[in-house]
Amino acid sequence: HRALRDERLHRGALRACRARGCRRRAFRPARVSAYAVMWSGGKDSALALWRARQGGLDVRWLVTAYDGVTDRVRFHATPIASIARQAEAARASLVSVPTAWESFDASLAAAFAGLSREGCTGIVFGDIHLADVRAWYEERTRRAGLEHVEPIWGEPPADLLAEFVAIGGRAMLTCVETAKLDPSWLGRTIDEGFVRDIARTGVDPCGENGEFHSFAYAGPFFTRPLRVRVGERRDDPRFAQLHIDAA
Amino acid sequence: HRALRDERLHRGALRACRARGCRRRAFRPARVSAYAVMWSGGKDSALALWRARQGGLDVRWLVTAYDGVTDRVRFHATPIASIARQAEAARASLVSVPTAWESFDASLAAAFAGLSREGCTGIVFGDIHLADVRAWYEERTRRAGLEHVEPIWGEPPADLLAEFVAIGGRAMLTCVETAKLDPSWLGRTIDEGFVRDIARTGVDPCGENGEFHSFAYAGPFFTRPLRVRVGERRDDPRFAQLHIDAA
Repeated sequence: HRALRDERLHRGALRACRARGCRRRAFRPARVSAYAVMWSGGKDSALALWRARQGGLDVRWLVTAYDGVTDRVRFHATPIASIARQAEAARASLVSVPTAWESFDASLAAAFAGLSREGCTGIVFGDIHLADVRAWYEERTRRAGLEHVEPIWGEPPADLLAEFVAIGGRAMLTCVETAKLDPSWLGRTIDEGFVRDIARTGVDPCGENGEFHSFAYAGPFFTRPLRVRVGERRDDPRFAQLHIDAA
Repeated sequence: HRALRDERLHRGALRACRARGCRRRAFRPARVSAYAVMWSGGKDSALALWRARQGGLDVRWLVTAYDGVTDRVRFHATPIASIARQAEAARASLVSVPTAWESFDASLAAAFAGLSREGCTGIVFGDIHLADVRAWYEERTRRAGLEHVEPIWGEPPADLLAEFVAIGGRAMLTCVETAKLDPSWLGRTIDEGFVRDIARTGVDPCGENGEFHSFAYAGPFFTRPLRVRVGERRDDPRFAQLHIDAA
């Protein structure tokens, strides 16, 4: 409850700050704050980054956990090299965290501890409504002495998706869970047409339950749009995934 | 539609065969048939194996696709060495298929082709109601010239779970998707109490949507119960998993 209250205060402050058009964080003025965004490369992390910066947070790092064997973000299938292009376009340093099955938790803890030592004061997440996923990260963020920030938490997914597109955000679907969404959606661009069409399917419009994952390649959170080259499609019984290269 | 009709005929034949108490397959008498079961190690593959043999199918192989890096079945987290113990207890040869992210499909195709060359006539699956997952396997099974058999398809998951327990089947939960089911379920035994308690949660009683995965360690499908040693728990933002060793 305390965490929830803190977050409400925090988000209230962000909103008030935005309403005044200010670019700096209005509270805790005496403390130098620097933030990291937990970054899967998808549209939700991009929207979280954008909102955090709009609210005045000084975001200096993107943190990406990826599979150390495939060099790809889990589920998304995005190569870590393409994530690095996003970080450059976002003018942030990439903290890339290779993970193995046995040691995911320990690797993330080490990355959070390292950020804390470098002067990072908090981590921004793009969680929307999966309370257990959020709690898992929140516990580890606080354990590292870091502030836990959730700028898009609790808002209707349809509104968030519409906002992402309205601000000029564009992303490509790189993963579809085929039991939940038809594989023909793979490779589609998230734009106005997507917002309209995904609403008709009945799935969560942000794919928060894993229906799909995306790669953000353009929007106000980047200094320039990335070019995306689409490679081979890869299939298994549960997922259809697309290899992409961003430049 | 044709595939569905074939399957209905097939299942009808199995039922008729069982009703007569016969142990041999009553149809296609002139053809020597030998089957493989697609085997994740969980309760659904075990029930599929049991029903197939009860219906008179000569099951000679278990086929298990696993991650070639972790040596574990994906999601289930079961070590391939423990799968080998199950195959021995089931008096079947294990066809273990190491897979990599890039080549899952090709590895499975090679395994199916190999089975076909060895005289396998069909593959038995434990799918229940995920049509896309089933279709994915069915396409590949038929492409290899093999018969596709689904002995538990379309039945209410609650009935299947009750049947598994009623025939003496026992399994342990080795994976929980934490957004769908509380991690406190990890390590629980599937027995009468489980059947009662899982019904109260509202999730699919067989965990068909990935809510949980299990490791079958006892039941009439094995010649002897396996001993399960429970090891470390492993966590990531989406899954809580348990290392087990079966002997």
